[in-house]
Parts: sequence; C-alpha cells; structure tokens
Amino acid sequence: MSRAIILFAHGARDPEWALPLQRLAAVVQGMQPGVSVQTAFLEFMEPDLAEAANRAIRAGAKTLVVVPVFLAQGGHVRRDVPRILDSVRAQHPGVQIELRNAVGEAQAVIDAMAHVIVDAG
Amino acid sequence: MSRAIILFAHGARDPEWALPLQRLAAVVQGMQPGVSVQTAFLEFMEPDLAEAANRAIRAGAKTLVVVPVFLAQGGHVRRDVPRILDSVRAQHPGVQIELRNAVGEAQAVIDAMAHVIVDAG
Repeated sequence: MSRAIILFAHGARDPEWALPLQRLAAVVQGMQPGVSVQTAFLEFMEPDLAEAANRAIRAGAKTLVVVPVFLAQGGHVRRDVPRILDSVRAQHPGVQIELRNAVGEAQAVIDAMAHVIVDAG
Repeated sequence: MSRAIILFAHGARDPEWALPLQRLAAVVQGMQPGVSVQTAFLEFMEPDLAEAANRAIRAGAKTLVVVPVFLAQGGHVRRDVPRILDSVRAQHPGVQIELRNAVGEAQAVIDAMAHVIVDAG
C-alpha cells in the first residue's frame, strides 16, 4: 500500500473521546480501500504523529496525507505539526508528505454541522 | 427573541481559531433568523459559557440550546458543561436549558468530513 492517510486529532484523557475519530477512519477506509487509513494524536492518546508516520512508512507508504481533524487551525496545527513533519521528512527524504487544512474549516463540514444543529429542533 | 442557541467551543490562543466557529454561527443564524445564535468558549476566548448564557437570558431568552462544537464528548463536555449549566439553571429557574451532544459525533458531520478528506484527492 503506497499511500497512507493519517487522521490527526488532539486526543483526550477519556478513551471514548476517540470513538468518533475511529468512525471517521472507518468511513474514509471504506471509501478508499486501497489506502492505509490511520489515526494519530497530539496528546493523551497513541500513537503520536511521528510514530504513526514512521509506522506507515515502514509499512511501505510512499505518500502520506496528514489531515488535521480539528475544528480550526490553532497553534498546534500551525506550528507543532509542520515541525513534526519536517523531522519525518528529514529521516525519509523519498516519502512525499502532504499536510491538509483542518477539516473543520471546510464549508461542507460547517454546513453539515449547521444542519445537525438546526434539524435537531 | 425567546430562544437562543449557544455554540460552545474550546477556544485557543490564536484569534483566527474562532473563524470557522463564527462561520458556523452565521450559517445557523441564516437558517434560523428568529433565534439568537451566540458563541461561547471553554478557555482562551470570551465570553465563557456562563456569561453567554446570562447575556442571552438578560436579552429575553426563555430557552437555551447549548451545542458543544467539539469533535467528541471529552471530560470538558461531560463534566464541566453540566456543572456550568446547573449553576445557570439555579439562578434562572424559569429558563429551559437543553444540552446537545457534541456536534462532531453526528453521522452527517462524520460523513461530510470523510467526503472532504477523500474528495481532496
């Protein structure tokens, strides 16, 4: 499998916090059966982003797509993530790493949230 | 305006972090022109949830709908928010306060995120 998608989220102490992210990973995996879909966390949960990236590369990924599953681009996504990915790039110069925008900034996601809020009454 | 929706999010040091939440508030407001749509934050940004609730009540709201704009229900949403809302309820027994599930747990939001991730290639 030469392409991996890493869904990168904040993490929390409560193990149930990760369930919606795991559901998201399952939906994406179902839509892209030829791609390896992984999760990674900034804190409290494992693996962290560097570990998830290294695992995917060891498993043969030549392209990594890193998707911040955050509502918005804050300091973590803006500063910490590029630094982590630069370090992965330095170790694996043959691997292409693409960092996406925070998924919560996409208009389709904002619209879906609005509909959920309004439709619930 | 007798009904208010409070979009409650984590907050961050970076002021731009709140932009997608403000876009969400504008979309919800456009869909529900008769309802007062407000934002509130757990930390780093203002107003906090108690202040937003009190402002809405002072402005005449008889029903408050509190929507955690979080990817998942973590400790903040599970523990802190009910405590804050109990305190608002105690001060304003005539106001009905409804706490929703975290919006990121809705299947429609998860599906929208999955499509954004996959459609971007």
